[in-house]
Amino acid sequence: MSTQKKQLIPAQNETARNEAAQGGTGEDTTQSLKSHSLAYIEGDGLRVPVTEIALEPSPSGEQNEPFRVYRTAGPGSDPVVGLAPFRAEWIAARGDTEPYSGRERNLLDDGRSAVRRGAASAEWKGAQPVPRRAVGGKTVTQMHYARQGVITPEMRFVALRENCDVELVRSEVAAGRAIIPNNINHPESEPMIIGKAFLVKINANIGNSAVTSSIAEEVDKLQWATQWGADTVMDLSTGDDIHTTREWLIRNSPVPIGTVPIYQALEKVNGEANALTWEIFRDTVIEQCEQGVDYMTIHAGVLLRYVPLTANRVTGIVSRGGSIMAGWCLAHHQENFLYTHFDELCEIFAKYDVAFSLGDGLRPGATADANDAAQFAELDTLAELTQRAWEYDVQVMVEGPGHVPFHLVRENVERQQELCKGAPFYTLGPLVTDIAPGYDHITSAIGATEIARYGTAMLCYVTPKEHLGLPNKDDVKTGVITYKIAAHAADLAKGHPGANERDDALSKARFEFRWRDQFALSLDPVTAEAFHDETLPAEPAKTAHFCSMCGPKFCSMRISQDIRNEYGSAEAQAALAEMAEGMREKSQEFLAAGGKVYLPELKLPETARQ
Amino acid sequence: MSTQKKQLIPAQNETARNEAAQGGTGEDTTQSLKSHSLAYIEGDGLRVPVTEIALEPSPSGEQNEPFRVYRTAGPGSDPVVGLAPFRAEWIAARGDTEPYSGRERNLLDDGRSAVRRGAASAEWKGAQPVPRRAVGGKTVTQMHYARQGVITPEMRFVALRENCDVELVRSEVAAGRAIIPNNINHPESEPMIIGKAFLVKINANIGNSAVTSSIAEEVDKLQWATQWGADTVMDLSTGDDIHTTREWLIRNSPVPIGTVPIYQALEKVNGEANALTWEIFRDTVIEQCEQGVDYMTIHAGVLLRYVPLTANRVTGIVSRGGSIMAGWCLAHHQENFLYTHFDELCEIFAKYDVAFSLGDGLRPGATADANDAAQFAELDTLAELTQRAWEYDVQVMVEGPGHVPFHLVRENVERQQELCKGAPFYTLGPLVTDIAPGYDHITSAIGATEIARYGTAMLCYVTPKEHLGLPNKDDVKTGVITYKIAAHAADLAKGHPGANERDDALSKARFEFRWRDQFALSLDPVTAEAFHDETLPAEPAKTAHFCSMCGPKFCSMRISQDIRNEYGSAEAQAALAEMAEGMREKSQEFLAAGGKVYLPELKLPETARQ
Repeated sequence: MSTQKKQLIPAQNETARNEAAQGGTGEDTTQSLKSHSLAYIEGDGLRVPVTEIALEPSPSGEQNEPFRVYRTAGPGSDPVVGLAPFRAEWIAARGDTEPYSGRERNLLDDGRSAVRRGAASAEWKGAQPVPRRAVGGKTVTQMHYARQGVITPEMRFVALRENCDVELVRSEVAAGRAIIPNNINHPESEPMIIGKAFLVKINANIGNSAVTSSIAEEVDKLQWATQWGADTVMDLSTGDDIHTTREWLIRNSPVPIGTVPIYQALEKVNGEANALTWEIFRDTVIEQCEQGVDYMTIHAGVLLRYVPLTANRVTGIVSRGGSIMAGWCLAHHQENFLYTHFDELCEIFAKYDVAFSLGDGLRPGATADANDAAQFAELDTLAELTQRAWEYDVQVMVEGPGHVPFHLVRENVERQQELCKGAPFYTLGPLVTDIAPGYDHITSAIGATEIARYGTAMLCYVTPKEHLGLPNKDDVKTGVITYKIAAHAADLAKGHPGANERDDALSKARFEFRWRDQFALSLDPVTAEAFHDETLPAEPAKTAHFCSMCGPKFCSMRISQDIRNEYGSAEAQAALAEMAEGMREKSQEFLAAGGKVYLPELKLPETARQ
Repeated sequence: MSTQKKQLIPAQNETARNEAAQGGTGEDTTQSLKSHSLAYIEGDGLRVPVTEIALEPSPSGEQNEPFRVYRTAGPGSDPVVGLAPFRAEWIAARGDTEPYSGRERNLLDDGRSAVRRGAASAEWKGAQPVPRRAVGGKTVTQMHYARQGVITPEMRFVALRENCDVELVRSEVAAGRAIIPNNINHPESEPMIIGKAFLVKINANIGNSAVTSSIAEEVDKLQWATQWGADTVMDLSTGDDIHTTREWLIRNSPVPIGTVPIYQALEKVNGEANALTWEIFRDTVIEQCEQGVDYMTIHAGVLLRYVPLTANRVTGIVSRGGSIMAGWCLAHHQENFLYTHFDELCEIFAKYDVAFSLGDGLRPGATADANDAAQFAELDTLAELTQRAWEYDVQVMVEGPGHVPFHLVRENVERQQELCKGAPFYTLGPLVTDIAPGYDHITSAIGATEIARYGTAMLCYVTPKEHLGLPNKDDVKTGVITYKIAAHAADLAKGHPGANERDDALSKARFEFRWRDQFALSLDPVTAEAFHDETLPAEPAKTAHFCSMCGPKFCSMRISQDIRNEYGSAEAQAALAEMAEGMREKSQEFLAAGGKVYLPELKLPETARQ
């Protein structure tokens, strides 16, 4: 009960903010969220949080069971305290890891301004977990356990969450076709799985830039993103306080956190890409492994010989990490150190269970550059690196584009799946046109639905601010909801078991004019209710058999219901139609024969009157 | 020049409204629209308006030609005056039509409140064109001319507008695969074509309901919708002043106007569907033909025997016209009078050149009901009616769904194209999931892109208010821009000639940090600029080599440009990469041989320094 209460507080805050953003009426629009509560699926000694939506009875009196939906928001946390490390005992119980002292706190990890002021702008004051790593040369990845035939609590948690057999979870992880990204140093995270046999997942990018944002804002964006459905969150901070921002985020995150470590490494060398070294990068990776980062984007596929392939592109290299490494390779006349030291990275990741997200540094940034030689050359190398990571039992997903015209989208996922032997694909959109800055959540959701339909396992959201500026909280919400649409549409298209149940429940509520249930079952109850109330805010409108779109006389659903009430079941209606057809034929015969008397008045059959 | 000035006034108003809606900074954000101006393509004695976008030179000094885009806004009009009837002389010159007195003004055409007050709430006071109709039994449709081998000025206008051969226009219209909807009584309209061989078009629905809206608001929505790119507009008014609202709209509309005449017919019988008769409907159709409606939705495929097929659906019948006719058929135990009188409708439409939009009254309103027996039975009948209309040389398009899961979308258009022998398909979305009320512009744009890719000719927009309320002006804009995205993405996917030029011009501007050009070339310059300026509003930011998304050090495009500046062309970069590769091999050989001296410092080749 207390947890449930905790969960409702942010929901109400969220409503107030939505009203402000959407020019709401100022009335209380929290009603539809009040029917949401935190519940648990229990089984196998585990409790998996879900969101339960209470429904009203149908007009017929039929009860509608509460509807349960997958929940990414976790139990909720006070940002300064963080979440409970509920996975800690599972990790310790395996007996293959040990606590150790870890790296020393280094102010430069937070950039030059932290060094200047002797602290980050808001130091983390909550509990600081002691870092753990594998004992000796052991491998502690979920892939390793899966390949040994071991079923971990993490796998069982995932199976309950996905409503599938745990053996499916184990076997897909063992085969490399799915990953469960959870660093042993992020025991607060609720296990989730990324793979094409499971629900399509979405990632939300947050993080500051040199130009804008603060730690508090980023924690707020994290909670906001997971409240609306982000399955993982990437902290892409490139400004001040990188280390400390990440600490706040990980300690408060119920979902896996991903990063791109080259960003922090570049900050450590004052933004001078040519000053980057493997040693600085390696130190940054270990720093992040100890903090609990669950997956890291590594641009190891940007090989020196591929860089010239981008020289005649319309928009060159558009991945930040990709452009940094390309510049480094040319400046040093050397191969990418992420590629040459890839085996060392595998050894490190195996000790903490960090998953690779193999970065597509040469992805197209314009539809004109899609599916070109540079992009596909890099993909060949990512396939090679996938195999190498698997030799270390390290989990891998592979990143994908970008900007791709609609008809070329499918080739991307099919090629990746074939070359990378089914390793999960994780794509940014793709955007199917370049001409709509300000609406790139939409241009990309179109491509995202197409690419997920053919097997992409996770979609990285794109917000309306893409290409224009750093997303604010409203943009984060819009991005998340838009990507929930794409992911869910793909689940439906794939015929994923049970995916249609929410659609059917909502459509039934809609047809029965259970407006509150229609709002509550939607991806964004606050917006649905606010839009409805803009023209019909009064309470009776919540049960009215119409809305302002068509008004009472033109509501097709009302008319359609009247037809059912008046003329009964399909059989009764069909009997009536047949009879009318028969009468018409008879009457035509009669008229053809020159008849002149009036036709008898038709009587409805009894069954049709029900 | 004066026309150009006229056009800029609404653009500035629009900017102010956008700022208010988007919480703008209050600064002048009209800059990017100032580079838009009205221009003309001239040829063949015709002038076709286009929007010309002036571009800045590239940093290299290279000039960028002004970019011309298809224009739906027309020359602009003062609402109380209306547009010039520029097609009137073309129509008169054909000598096959004549003016006549037409129906008498009947206050009931505007509903009971007009009868009560003796006038509509805002009578049309502008010029009232004398209605025309075909002389004697003549047919005056574009299809008729096309089949005779006659090339009309309308066809030549379309060919200039689409940048294609006029013979393609004529032959597609003759074959029924495209329509040019322009009633001889709407001489203000600029001819446009709907067919899969041409650019994908979009329609915006406007119109009041019994609950909300006024005539002035509807005229405003018309001008707003065409300003942002609506190719046709449907007036779906179901409230007061239906006749007069339509008069204001047609007299001010540069695009074809469509209607659903059953709505007005129903108003004439006080909303009592069972009181509808063929005679009342026929009178309403003639009233609208005389006013200048260009295409009408006719739900003639809702046959009595199909109604029972909807009885077990999740959401029954969701088309307003469909549900009205279904109820009528059952109540009267008679076949749909739109079906039984279809030939008479053809005769009427042939006299004014009104096009059929064959309504899909049994379209699915939930993904669970998609592609079912009711929907496809109706489609069979629509195919039969298409053939019958063609026998009268009457132009036809066929309406399509609705709510359809993504993997079932393609079947809809392929089946329609096969059964209806290529008659243009005109679909509402379809929405690929039911669970996102408030975001159905997005759920439907995903389906719209897919269905247009496979040959749908026109997409009916869906606004964020779908299922929730009557769209306001902001919703209209969001719906139009979202559907421009879907239509354009489909054009790109179809490889439509020249479709990629705008993408490439925008991407080039993006890569060259021509921010103003990036905004100006986008579908919504106002929003793009406002989003950018939210974090970097100052003037120097308009030429800066970064934005707030990544900040200066992490801008991949800047780094990518630096690489090109530093290391030269693809060839120069490749030479450098090869040399480095060679050095690496040599050095490995050397090390393998036990070598210990330092490698010589690499020198860049001269060409790479350019």
